[in-house]
Amino acid sequence: MASLIKQKLSVINVGLEQFAETITATGGAVTQVEWVPPALGDVGVAMTLARLTNHAEIEKANDTAFAAFLAASPRLRSVGVAAALLPRLGERTILHAGPPIEWARMCGPMQGAIIGAILYEGWAGDETAARRIAASGEISFEPCHHHAAVGPMAGIISPSMPLWIVENPVSGARAYSNFNEGLGKALRFGAFGDEVLGRLGWMKKTLAPAMRAALDSFDAGIELKPLMAQALIMGDEVHNRNAAASGLLFRKLASALVRAGVAVDDVADVLDFIAGNEHFFLNISMAACKLMLDSAHGIAGSSMVTAMSRNGVEFGIRVSGLGDRWFTAPANDIDGLYFAGYSGADAARDLGDSSITETAGFGGFSMAAAPAIVKFVGGTPEDAITNSRRMRHITLGESDVFQLPALDFRGAPCGIDLRKVVDSGIEPVINTGIAHREAGVGQIGAGLTRAPLDCFIQALKALDSWYNPE
Amino acid sequence: MASLIKQKLSVINVGLEQFAETITATGGAVTQVEWVPPALGDVGVAMTLARLTNHAEIEKANDTAFAAFLAASPRLRSVGVAAALLPRLGERTILHAGPPIEWARMCGPMQGAIIGAILYEGWAGDETAARRIAASGEISFEPCHHHAAVGPMAGIISPSMPLWIVENPVSGARAYSNFNEGLGKALRFGAFGDEVLGRLGWMKKTLAPAMRAALDSFDAGIELKPLMAQALIMGDEVHNRNAAASGLLFRKLASALVRAGVAVDDVADVLDFIAGNEHFFLNISMAACKLMLDSAHGIAGSSMVTAMSRNGVEFGIRVSGLGDRWFTAPANDIDGLYFAGYSGADAARDLGDSSITETAGFGGFSMAAAPAIVKFVGGTPEDAITNSRRMRHITLGESDVFQLPALDFRGAPCGIDLRKVVDSGIEPVINTGIAHREAGVGQIGAGLTRAPLDCFIQALKALDSWYNPE
Repeated sequence: MASLIKQKLSVINVGLEQFAETITATGGAVTQVEWVPPALGDVGVAMTLARLTNHAEIEKANDTAFAAFLAASPRLRSVGVAAALLPRLGERTILHAGPPIEWARMCGPMQGAIIGAILYEGWAGDETAARRIAASGEISFEPCHHHAAVGPMAGIISPSMPLWIVENPVSGARAYSNFNEGLGKALRFGAFGDEVLGRLGWMKKTLAPAMRAALDSFDAGIELKPLMAQALIMGDEVHNRNAAASGLLFRKLASALVRAGVAVDDVADVLDFIAGNEHFFLNISMAACKLMLDSAHGIAGSSMVTAMSRNGVEFGIRVSGLGDRWFTAPANDIDGLYFAGYSGADAARDLGDSSITETAGFGGFSMAAAPAIVKFVGGTPEDAITNSRRMRHITLGESDVFQLPALDFRGAPCGIDLRKVVDSGIEPVINTGIAHREAGVGQIGAGLTRAPLDCFIQALKALDSWYNPE
Repeated sequence: MASLIKQKLSVINVGLEQFAETITATGGAVTQVEWVPPALGDVGVAMTLARLTNHAEIEKANDTAFAAFLAASPRLRSVGVAAALLPRLGERTILHAGPPIEWARMCGPMQGAIIGAILYEGWAGDETAARRIAASGEISFEPCHHHAAVGPMAGIISPSMPLWIVENPVSGARAYSNFNEGLGKALRFGAFGDEVLGRLGWMKKTLAPAMRAALDSFDAGIELKPLMAQALIMGDEVHNRNAAASGLLFRKLASALVRAGVAVDDVADVLDFIAGNEHFFLNISMAACKLMLDSAHGIAGSSMVTAMSRNGVEFGIRVSGLGDRWFTAPANDIDGLYFAGYSGADAARDLGDSSITETAGFGGFSMAAAPAIVKFVGGTPEDAITNSRRMRHITLGESDVFQLPALDFRGAPCGIDLRKVVDSGIEPVINTGIAHREAGVGQIGAGLTRAPLDCFIQALKALDSWYNPE
């Protein structure tokens, strides 16, 4: 029961790490506090920021937007076909992830997925013909986001594809997403071989009608927020890890499917398909996030970010108070773990609408809930917790429903305020899959990336112009 | 970029907390190190401990036992009926949890569950008649553990009850457990009303044959270790939280059940029953743990604990090198959270074979994996992590398969060494359900308790007698 007494020098260092290094070198203990000057030292941006910080109208608009976001209650309602569900979808239109982009500038996996969609629709018989049609101008390419839809990675939706319908029962608003094919060779990663097209055919013919029949037996669909909240408690971040969410949905759908009168063999095949795909819920999570964020979109003067999305070339954001404009910057590379035989040199840049989940507080923002995600995207469980903590600095608040157990059940940080991103220099962190840079290959890994600060600076300037027109 | 410099007094205090309190009172910072004298200061015990510490034969025996424990590979093989599966089960025998105990001394919930089993078997028509038969001596009461079986809470197994068969495909060894009924009014918590008996009847008639049919379609059953490892990654501690494990099993069984030719209505009912019971996997987890620990049992001279179990009156342990003897002490109370309307005054004492999961490194030992368990048993996620860390001090090693993400994927602490328990004074921590103290009521809460040190001191003395006979 001895008492050992010691004394030591303790220092808190704010900003440049070099100061801290000098102290540690002489045996002192240092707590390093990250700090960067606002807007990374750009005086013009700093002055813009000063005009918009603690701005009564913005705070009020953000309160409204954030409250609408929290109040949204998405339900998985049914399944339909894109051509029937999306009123503004032209006959020869293909939707893609991210902000607008023309065929010639698209990245390899997006082109690959479009080739696959053209073959799937029967508009061409082989890759060469599909490429010719795609480049000819006879197909219209539009962002999923322009049709209340979202799709992971390449995000391709063509007219005859089945879509999940996620609905807000109060407002009747809807959001849509395509179906998840599983990992590896998949259209969304740019693969378009027979295996991929065969699976897509089965999904249209068997899986989608079965899911529709099962969902019909629920009075008003399946409430998604409680399911997603439960998944966070079970180690998902509900973007790149959906093992729990997919299992919880499976558990809800299985007996409904059996009772729906679907042929027994089809029921068993559908159950096997869902049971074999831990990412099955991803697309539904995305549509739920899209619906929650759309509820907060269009509040005049609000600086809340309502979409972050990537087409593999550009990263784009949309802001509640700034209408349907995209603010874009070059898409980042990804810091990730690669499947055997691949490396960063093979990787496409950041791609997909799936960062809608981060925009709503999942994925990188909720990594603290999912220590096992680091086995997929890299880093340590401690890094995962740090990411969630950091995101608190750039968000309007915390979820009242989605809890992070490792942070003592505090709510997930959500509602990105573009002013806070510019002020702190902290870019939103994103967990993501990695596609091969060439068309036709597929997924080669997963990792972490960040939303480029420049998107937020542009949006800040636009918001300033709205408040302070010349 | 200012540097703020401060100095403070830091003290590490080992042992009695009063020293630390004096320092904190004067503004100093204290790191409290828990420390107790070996064997809580009992000189005789301390001398015994000294004789058996770093004892070459014990270390060797423990290496053998621990290796056998790690090597065991339980599979969920099939389902059968107790009378047919347990060769030494008499016609009028009822098995119960914990060490041996006679009817008159049994706690309320165990008596209640036995009344239920007597009604279920049709040996009596009402509670009064059942009590008379139970007290008459015409029924033999024996521990589940004496029949390679385990049952949660009251742990009642009567001859016509269905049992899970868990098998080690290498040795052919088996362990058994009854089926989980769900929470609330359940036989295992001492309830025996019509609702309870009706459910047990359906489980025998419909659920058990359906599970048997589904399991028949697997070549050699379902490997349980990968499933349990995955459940730890998904926030279960695989004792009082089995949400993930139950879901993972459900996902494996669903399509097999559909393909097995079971009537469609029964399939749907069975799926609904399993989907509605997050504790469905508990009994299977227990049988798997029993099988792993039985593999390590019977190694001459080993101090590894191979069973911890409670009958609601006494807590008992068995030790690998000490045969089938039980070392018992009065069962502890439980520090827990109670359902509305109940309190500690209503609670039975620590009850059930389910602490076989802690003996194998789950439950309280793996709480770090399951922050959400604190909403059920009390405490904070930090406490849960601390419990797992503490258990490392009393175990032979860490699992090579079961990882705790929050501890940087270190293995779950397992293989309790009774010498380490006595030496450190750290009692094994146990997560547990709480039954009402009276027969017929059911579950009233859940909480934390500890294995009484005295069991381990008795076992230490017995081990000493074996090594150093008079």
